[in-house]
Amino acid sequence: MSSFLRAFVTNSHSFLRRTTGYTRTFSEAPAGLRVKLSADGKGLALFSGVTPEESHYHVKWLRHNCQCSQCLSSSGQKTVTADHLMRDDNIERVKLLGDKLLVEWTAHSGWFDVNWLISNHPSSNQIVARKEATPAHPTTKLPFMRYKEIMDPSNEGLYNWLYHLSAKGVCIITGVPADKEHTVKVAHRLGEMQSTVDGECFDVIAVPKEELTNIADSEVGLELHMDLQYYQSPPGLQILHCIRNDPCVEGGESTLLDGLEVVERLRETHPRQFEILSKVQVPFQKIRQKGDFPVKMEYRKPHIELDHNDQVIGINWSPAQQGTLSPHEDEIEEYYEAYTNLFKLFNDSPLIIEYRLNPGEVLSFNNRRFLHGRRPYASNGGQRHLAGFYINIDEFASKLAALSKTLGKSQPLKHVLNTSYYN
Amino acid sequence: MSSFLRAFVTNSHSFLRRTTGYTRTFSEAPAGLRVKLSADGKGLALFSGVTPEESHYHVKWLRHNCQCSQCLSSSGQKTVTADHLMRDDNIERVKLLGDKLLVEWTAHSGWFDVNWLISNHPSSNQIVARKEATPAHPTTKLPFMRYKEIMDPSNEGLYNWLYHLSAKGVCIITGVPADKEHTVKVAHRLGEMQSTVDGECFDVIAVPKEELTNIADSEVGLELHMDLQYYQSPPGLQILHCIRNDPCVEGGESTLLDGLEVVERLRETHPRQFEILSKVQVPFQKIRQKGDFPVKMEYRKPHIELDHNDQVIGINWSPAQQGTLSPHEDEIEEYYEAYTNLFKLFNDSPLIIEYRLNPGEVLSFNNRRFLHGRRPYASNGGQRHLAGFYINIDEFASKLAALSKTLGKSQPLKHVLNTSYYN
Repeated sequence: MSSFLRAFVTNSHSFLRRTTGYTRTFSEAPAGLRVKLSADGKGLALFSGVTPEESHYHVKWLRHNCQCSQCLSSSGQKTVTADHLMRDDNIERVKLLGDKLLVEWTAHSGWFDVNWLISNHPSSNQIVARKEATPAHPTTKLPFMRYKEIMDPSNEGLYNWLYHLSAKGVCIITGVPADKEHTVKVAHRLGEMQSTVDGECFDVIAVPKEELTNIADSEVGLELHMDLQYYQSPPGLQILHCIRNDPCVEGGESTLLDGLEVVERLRETHPRQFEILSKVQVPFQKIRQKGDFPVKMEYRKPHIELDHNDQVIGINWSPAQQGTLSPHEDEIEEYYEAYTNLFKLFNDSPLIIEYRLNPGEVLSFNNRRFLHGRRPYASNGGQRHLAGFYINIDEFASKLAALSKTLGKSQPLKHVLNTSYYN
Repeated sequence: MSSFLRAFVTNSHSFLRRTTGYTRTFSEAPAGLRVKLSADGKGLALFSGVTPEESHYHVKWLRHNCQCSQCLSSSGQKTVTADHLMRDDNIERVKLLGDKLLVEWTAHSGWFDVNWLISNHPSSNQIVARKEATPAHPTTKLPFMRYKEIMDPSNEGLYNWLYHLSAKGVCIITGVPADKEHTVKVAHRLGEMQSTVDGECFDVIAVPKEELTNIADSEVGLELHMDLQYYQSPPGLQILHCIRNDPCVEGGESTLLDGLEVVERLRETHPRQFEILSKVQVPFQKIRQKGDFPVKMEYRKPHIELDHNDQVIGINWSPAQQGTLSPHEDEIEEYYEAYTNLFKLFNDSPLIIEYRLNPGEVLSFNNRRFLHGRRPYASNGGQRHLAGFYINIDEFASKLAALSKTLGKSQPLKHVLNTSYYN
């Protein structure tokens, strides 16, 4: 055993376990794979043998991502500190061993899985992310699933439901018993309900005028909007379980619109309007001074949130909850032109889906991507009653990603518009 | 009654109520107040009589913020749509009436409270916001309060506690009975606990090595960090209630650091490092594939989040939870230089507060502004047990703002670093 290899064996317990009898247990590295240390020790180049290009890796990026068990726990926690990064500013030696790349820095020996290195190279990530970000065809048809499917213990149905919510942004579940006990059962398939200033599980039902505190609890129509925009992280999934919608009730159809699709069209047709709506900060607010739990929320953000590559990572839309803008004076004219136009593009969109919920149906959608509303209705002596709840957007994305891994699925997952940056 | 005034009376119910006998019930407008309609009807100028400058207001900004009861409900909900904004693109007439400004657009008559107009003018807001944003003196001394004070039904103590958490970012409550029943009582003073993938109420206590899933549940030291950075909106307030900390336990002191102060110093001393840390997107992650609730979270954002005026609105710091960076190749060198430097600035900071929690004490701090950690400890046969929970950052800000209004307090409130834009 060379002194170089011995250093790995000494420093890296998990590598030790994996190198015992390594000539037989190692996976093969890609044929033609070669590694070259730069003359100054500040990086290395990998030739994959698949493409003619070489990939460069920086000494500190490598040190920060060392995969030995000293540096990275099984739960993904890093223990690399500033001291390690400052000390290990040079690569002394590298060696390919099957599908592992052994690296010796100034004062630490570690290793990498070569395939991990290739697939995690910054530039390759960026290309994949941009491709995935291209919007698919707009969602104008509602995907439907059965209650039995989503409850099946194999989790295949649950995965399909979550995948619809990721790819299409919306899904209706049919055959759910029309009582609130089953609202909770549906919730538990998704995780914990997201608590807000309105509580956890809420009812949408017309109440007498003198009890009205939320316009949703009346018979009037609701314009297309997103819920609770005055939070940094507004609700992710919105789930509306139809408990009652009597045949005599006229109107009250749910409306839904893929906001991402409309916003991306605005970028094409009115690039300057798109730009101004991604710059002017808009206050969203909720004020409820009376009662035991007074609320005075205000949160400012642009209607369209972009990352450093100008990709859409968030959409914020709720005209009724807008507070008083304080744009720079030279932006006011342009803001109102853009705002008015997007308002019309949303409300006149041919992509709007209209659907009358039947008792026993559950409407689920991503509140960060889809706008929703309601046509006005007349109860005519009957009742329309929805029971609703929310799921945190990051927990939704996590649930889908974890389930996707458990079930061995390989479909790429769309950005959920939780404002997380792309690569 | 002029036809102009009659239009207001007809269109605006709340104004009608307020104008009945208006000559006596109106407050006086500032002496010397004058209003001038622009020649093209696209705006108006207000001369406050206090300063020589005139303030300009744009026709659409005014229309969007009309305060009549048709346009603005008592809960602050707006009903102004794109149609109103397009139609009412001209101001026909304006009139001062006591402290009210009556405005007649193309097809709508509404009104404003003049003092509201003055204090909500975009430019005045911006100046106030920038002044408030200037960091106060760094917090190196812990404010203390008594349990009795925060529970007092007058809410004065509760206000003071929340105000400390806003101004100083941290506060210790003493005299809290050392059982988990009282952890919940403390929580209910603040609102609803914020649910996360770790549940609602959690325990920090050393467990046998084979049960360990979180490094906090051991005796090792914890470097300065912020919790749950892999969420779009990580926990706001963190509350740690000391249930036990036996005299024989050696070490285990809590460490706290005002991250905002350190970051603002970095801006002064290393502007380019500050800039790069506000640009490179950093993945924060949590992976827990085993068990009934697998988790696979990843969220990308810069360490320092800025608004359009380059003011700090968010700080993200958790070295152990960092995933693999994908910076542009020409940013790698600079990123690691800046990251390493900030790492050292945090951990070597003279502002670090060290405190040994006693049973019956509650440590509370803003997890979005303060870094926290723990010195390693030895139980020596005794026990150290904290019960903790989180409060959503926006609900914290809302609670303080609402209480401040209810109690008639006028102290300005600091930004809570929830990434909401400044004016």
